[in-house]
Amino acid sequence: MKLCLLRKFKYLTVIFTIFASQIVNAETLKFDMTIEEMVKEVTPGFTNKVWAFNGQVPGPLIRAKEGDRLIITVQNNSTLAHTVHWHGTFQTNSWKMDGVPGVTQKAIQPGDSFVYDFIVDKPGSLWYHCHVNVPEHVGLRGMWGPMIIDPKEPTDIEKEVTKEAIMMFSGWNSEVAMEYGKGGHPQELNDYFSINGKSFPSTQPLRVKEGDVLRIRLFAATVEAAYHLHGHDVLVTHKDGLPLDSPYWADVVHVPSGGRVDVIVRMNNPGIWINHDHIEAHTSNAGKMPGGAVTIIEYEGVETEEWYKWKGKEYQPDFYMSETMKKGSGIHNVDVYKAKAPESDRRKRKKKRKSKKSKAE
Amino acid sequence: MKLCLLRKFKYLTVIFTIFASQIVNAETLKFDMTIEEMVKEVTPGFTNKVWAFNGQVPGPLIRAKEGDRLIITVQNNSTLAHTVHWHGTFQTNSWKMDGVPGVTQKAIQPGDSFVYDFIVDKPGSLWYHCHVNVPEHVGLRGMWGPMIIDPKEPTDIEKEVTKEAIMMFSGWNSEVAMEYGKGGHPQELNDYFSINGKSFPSTQPLRVKEGDVLRIRLFAATVEAAYHLHGHDVLVTHKDGLPLDSPYWADVVHVPSGGRVDVIVRMNNPGIWINHDHIEAHTSNAGKMPGGAVTIIEYEGVETEEWYKWKGKEYQPDFYMSETMKKGSGIHNVDVYKAKAPESDRRKRKKKRKSKKSKAE
Amino acid sequence: MKLCLLRKFKYLTVIFTIFASQIVNAETLKFDMTIEEMVKEVTPGFTNKVWAFNGQVPGPLIRAKEGDRLIITVQNNSTLAHTVHWHGTFQTNSWKMDGVPGVTQKAIQPGDSFVYDFIVDKPGSLWYHCHVNVPEHVGLRGMWGPMIIDPKEPTDIEKEVTKEAIMMFSGWNSEVAMEYGKGGHPQELNDYFSINGKSFPSTQPLRVKEGDVLRIRLFAATVEAAYHLHGHDVLVTHKDGLPLDSPYWADVVHVPSGGRVDVIVRMNNPGIWINHDHIEAHTSNAGKMPGGAVTIIEYEGVETEEWYKWKGKEYQPDFYMSETMKKGSGIHNVDVYKAKAPESDRRKRKKKRKSKKSKAE
Repeated sequence: MKLCLLRKFKYLTVIFTIFASQIVNAETLKFDMTIEEMVKEVTPGFTNKVWAFNGQVPGPLIRAKEGDRLIITVQNNSTLAHTVHWHGTFQTNSWKMDGVPGVTQKAIQPGDSFVYDFIVDKPGSLWYHCHVNVPEHVGLRGMWGPMIIDPKEPTDIEKEVTKEAIMMFSGWNSEVAMEYGKGGHPQELNDYFSINGKSFPSTQPLRVKEGDVLRIRLFAATVEAAYHLHGHDVLVTHKDGLPLDSPYWADVVHVPSGGRVDVIVRMNNPGIWINHDHIEAHTSNAGKMPGGAVTIIEYEGVETEEWYKWKGKEYQPDFYMSETMKKGSGIHNVDVYKAKAPESDRRKRKKKRKSKKSKAE
Repeated sequence: MKLCLLRKFKYLTVIFTIFASQIVNAETLKFDMTIEEMVKEVTPGFTNKVWAFNGQVPGPLIRAKEGDRLIITVQNNSTLAHTVHWHGTFQTNSWKMDGVPGVTQKAIQPGDSFVYDFIVDKPGSLWYHCHVNVPEHVGLRGMWGPMIIDPKEPTDIEKEVTKEAIMMFSGWNSEVAMEYGKGGHPQELNDYFSINGKSFPSTQPLRVKEGDVLRIRLFAATVEAAYHLHGHDVLVTHKDGLPLDSPYWADVVHVPSGGRVDVIVRMNNPGIWINHDHIEAHTSNAGKMPGGAVTIIEYEGVETEEWYKWKGKEYQPDFYMSETMKKGSGIHNVDVYKAKAPESDRRKRKKKRKSKKSKAE
Repeated sequence: MKLCLLRKFKYLTVIFTIFASQIVNAETLKFDMTIEEMVKEVTPGFTNKVWAFNGQVPGPLIRAKEGDRLIITVQNNSTLAHTVHWHGTFQTNSWKMDGVPGVTQKAIQPGDSFVYDFIVDKPGSLWYHCHVNVPEHVGLRGMWGPMIIDPKEPTDIEKEVTKEAIMMFSGWNSEVAMEYGKGGHPQELNDYFSINGKSFPSTQPLRVKEGDVLRIRLFAATVEAAYHLHGHDVLVTHKDGLPLDSPYWADVVHVPSGGRVDVIVRMNNPGIWINHDHIEAHTSNAGKMPGGAVTIIEYEGVETEEWYKWKGKEYQPDFYMSETMKKGSGIHNVDVYKAKAPESDRRKRKKKRKSKKSKAE
């Protein structure tokens, strides 16, 4: 134990040494990312104005290897100021890239851009989010996305994983949903809850096959969660990106606000298994049940009945980024997360098209 | 550690092997359970309409040994549809017994019954609850009860336990308490909080004697809890039924919604010790203090003063199921949890009795 | 592991043995502490009536060595009844010193005092708080303070600590802030959140230098917290005062209501680093952002820009008790926590002064 602790405490020193010796392998990755005013349909009947990274909620997947240098130009195409905080990165020698307005930088004004330039010196399940007026921008406007940094030395159990899934939990408040600059008062309460920006039944199945070793990366993006998977215990392996010395089994996993917990599950129990936030208030859509932060794991080859809630549902295989997680380093948009352009824009464009058309005539 | 992890990951495989070799010892247990419309008195002055398993809140204790087969017929005598989810069971090869409406079965309609048939292939502190309209049925209507599965291989520390106690934490909302079909909107807040269905001072003392090794199984049935015992640290030994590799000491134990945490305490400090949920909002009865999810551990032989809050209190020794936990496998009603028949029923029965009487006359 | 567990379970027995052999070194410390009606300015524009231990919020630091005897006379100078519970102490053979009204003592009436006399038989990050009408007295009126008991056998990593910081998290409700006897209903929600009684930007920087080994003792005094430090992972070393067998790294640390978590951080990453409760609702002042339970770690020698939020801020080096923690055993008032006498008192005193003056004339 003492050894173990010492090893841990040398962590940062060690990674620098490794870093020096491995720097030949480190890559420099250049990305562009925009912030757009969009409308997210959380579930039919409930839409929410968002400031969407690359026009989507959650934002695009940023993927890199431990030790890589990222140069990310963030262009603010919205009408209010923002920043981006890269939650979990150490920002060693680059504290001015930490993305906190009035502390590490001035906020990025509408129309402006900012270049974030830093080395991803911590591996694991990280994320990024705005750090301006957090209760509204992060809490209610979808300004969050995943950043997965592949470790130089994965643990044995990580190496066994055959399927990746990312679940980001968030809340929404329909009372202020359609008005920018409103919401986030501590006495207001959310009425919608979602995984990856969608509330049940608008979430998607997570399809697996027997024998899969599934890693689910749980992100409490805007609200805490108590994740419960039916039919399986999960092994809790990572906290905030780093492996636990003493993993433990659970059927309800608490993820505190802003935290991440990775769990690994052997898919050895074919069936149709609901999995969801077990906080009661998070399992309805403004009181309409079922709803909320709920989804279903479907094993390949299992027959479902006619009355199955999701019978014949149109399937989007990338809803948990399982497809996108197969790609290598880069910034990856995820089509199913795309929000819509606001009505006014659509009308303007329609008008333009019409006027072009009439001019053409 | 690696060994340990491997051991863990082989868990399911292993239990099947054990299972095969020990199947001769496995029992088949057949139970009946009903769902009744009842009225629960949480504390004098506050009653709540419930759908009570076997007419009680919490529901009856289900007790079995790891590997047993349970066949439970659930009869719905209420006016709305329900199911029963057996939280924590793996339901290996029996996913259709998982109790999720629209996913694993059609909800049990009023007057109908459903036979759940499954093997309890995971040991420890499990529970069961309805899975229809969870924010109301579970969150506000008392549809939850304990299921304790004795492990084939208890840990050393478990073997030392001399006294068992079960504490199930829940919240209530007096504004919707007496109207079925109402309540559960995420913006509503509870105003009563309880242990095993009662709010202080209507809870009961937990009486121990010096030398007892007390195991308290904490269940966050409908609300999270931060359990604090005065005068002792507790050793946190189990999470969601399974033993931790690395138990730890605590004086405040967080139990996330739906989770269970087992703690073991050596009763070596004679006195009168309050113990309670440390979440401030959970320690009053609609603002009246003291109240809420609070109780007191009383050591045998300790003298109390005249002004002691519970001086001369009528004692119900089974309020934490310490008596019922001495019984073997089976479904065990717990008298102190009995709810009352609703007023209308009582009137009807009275009428019937009267009419019978008048006919007889 | 088994050994380890045994060792743990012998804990209490062992400390008594040690205690007997070391009793020669144990000290008896006598303190006086008062409860005063004061007004706390949480941030300009928001003040709250409090019952302040020694006139300050948080209360004074109580510091002793494991095994010491404390004799604390608490004088109630307020208009309502109170007690003091010494949260985390075992109170072995002294359960009547546990501070629970109606259970271990009668509440201390206005004008009265009570002598608490007990041995601090558990080391670590403890605290004290009132146990009368907790949702108001503790939850909203500042009746809480730190008690740090130095262990006889500190862990290796504890011995490396070069700088101590204490952070106590609390909430406030401006709607009932200025009226004693109001507030604490479970359906009321807080609108201000603070560290050591102040909301950002009225909190203070925590100044460190490269090479410091910083121990932060996190206390969820009245609300849970999800503590996030930018630019560093923290090693979670202690839970509720006692060392973990298996410390773990985190960038978001959940502290349940009433719980304490100690974290140790090597200050090896010079910069200006915000750190805060990551629960969104806790990061504004009644909706005004930025605000809430937020502060900033400033490394010595790091240049900040003109637009830095805290540029030229008047610095109070003891805001996290880093100075006071250098003192030995005793009860230590902390000047920066002083609340103000209420308006009426000030008026009375002014009047008195005036009348004295006029008499003198």
